[in-house]
Amino acid sequence: MKKRIYYNDTDAGGIVYHSNYITFCEQARSELFFKKGIFFENEGYVVKELQAKYIKPAKLGDIIEIRTKPKEIKKASIKLIQEIFLKEEKIFELEITLVYVKSGKPSKIPQKHMEIINELS
Amino acid sequence: MKKRIYYNDTDAGGIVYHSNYITFCEQARSELFFKKGIFFENEGYVVKELQAKYIKPAKLGDIIEIRTKPKEIKKASIKLIQEIFLKEEKIFELEITLVYVKSGKPSKIPQKHMEIINELS
Amino acid sequence: MKKRIYYNDTDAGGIVYHSNYITFCEQARSELFFKKGIFFENEGYVVKELQAKYIKPAKLGDIIEIRTKPKEIKKASIKLIQEIFLKEEKIFELEITLVYVKSGKPSKIPQKHMEIINELS
Amino acid sequence: MKKRIYYNDTDAGGIVYHSNYITFCEQARSELFFKKGIFFENEGYVVKELQAKYIKPAKLGDIIEIRTKPKEIKKASIKLIQEIFLKEEKIFELEITLVYVKSGKPSKIPQKHMEIINELS
Repeated sequence: MKKRIYYNDTDAGGIVYHSNYITFCEQARSELFFKKGIFFENEGYVVKELQAKYIKPAKLGDIIEIRTKPKEIKKASIKLIQEIFLKEEKIFELEITLVYVKSGKPSKIPQKHMEIINELS
Repeated sequence: MKKRIYYNDTDAGGIVYHSNYITFCEQARSELFFKKGIFFENEGYVVKELQAKYIKPAKLGDIIEIRTKPKEIKKASIKLIQEIFLKEEKIFELEITLVYVKSGKPSKIPQKHMEIINELS
Repeated sequence: MKKRIYYNDTDAGGIVYHSNYITFCEQARSELFFKKGIFFENEGYVVKELQAKYIKPAKLGDIIEIRTKPKEIKKASIKLIQEIFLKEEKIFELEITLVYVKSGKPSKIPQKHMEIINELS
Repeated sequence: MKKRIYYNDTDAGGIVYHSNYITFCEQARSELFFKKGIFFENEGYVVKELQAKYIKPAKLGDIIEIRTKPKEIKKASIKLIQEIFLKEEKIFELEITLVYVKSGKPSKIPQKHMEIINELS
């Protein structure tokens, strides 16, 4: 997924506010499902833990690219690697563990979700 | 309500991002109810229209004050004036019309809400 | 400009948080300049006043379209109408007055900006 | 630092959007300096890496408390542990490494900053 950096993504330091890179990664994850016509209702992926490395900042007007790949797939959870690139240079890396929750409880990831996730490998 | 300006409230222009003043006003409205122990569920106030005047900017570290007063009260809607002050100088003004919605439909504003609104006059 | 609605655009009410429609309009304005390779530095458009009408909400996963046209053009300021559509139905309308500021002072809108603005008519 | 959860902190899932806990921690860090009258200009703390654990969610109206303590202090960088509590129960934990940057370069953390950091131990 590609994304333009707008004013509201930046802060008074002149660069993208650090939490927003984590938001961009979530948008990229959601887009994987939305573009297949899957819109969550009474279900979704809850963040359990994450590790982020900030390599270089992005700034106003930049177009970044978010790339997502699975690292570890379990029955009810998944660990992903998400990298943000600016002109083919990696500027940010996220490792994130998500739990699939349905009706408030951790549940088996549905088959049609697994197909989307496997396409990323 | 008083509020400190943090990095995430600002943008690369070095001042508070313009939509955030409107967010601060909503926080002040919600706080009126929250501090009385009223937490909305299946109900709430939906914005119908608003007019905002930007007088002076606030910047990182500033402490602003949001003052709220009713302008017009109807059965299912209310018009408020909300002003933001920085060191006793008005920097922003909002006139906002809100509709009380319960179970998805415009409804009569509850009596206990009216008491909170009347206290502002 | 088209934009997908993501989780961070919504709130606990299940729909887009009201300030965010105003943010989306700013992104559409910035995009007009960014896509022509104009990135502001030490200059920009400051919001003086705005009026917003909320017609219908957008929700998670929706793709909205923001359309921008000039209403009034002055030497150092401009009034725009920005409308947000969801599947060809207008759901939000903004009238916004912007002042062009360079090195901290209201200034004459540059010719290359005027060309971009005139293309919108 | 205590903080109320408002609508804009939540998402359509009904709970606080996951990036926002990281934002709350930054606000708590900034507040440590702001309340001592230190407002950064041409300097600041840049996030190098972070690890976050999500234990339980916070929701609309909740009042959370952010507690900050140093884990490792170096010449130009610092590692902090920040924990978020809801009614004395820990709901979130962040380990974050920050680099002090002045005029764009990693620099020795000033003595008056060190005093603030040491007070947290």
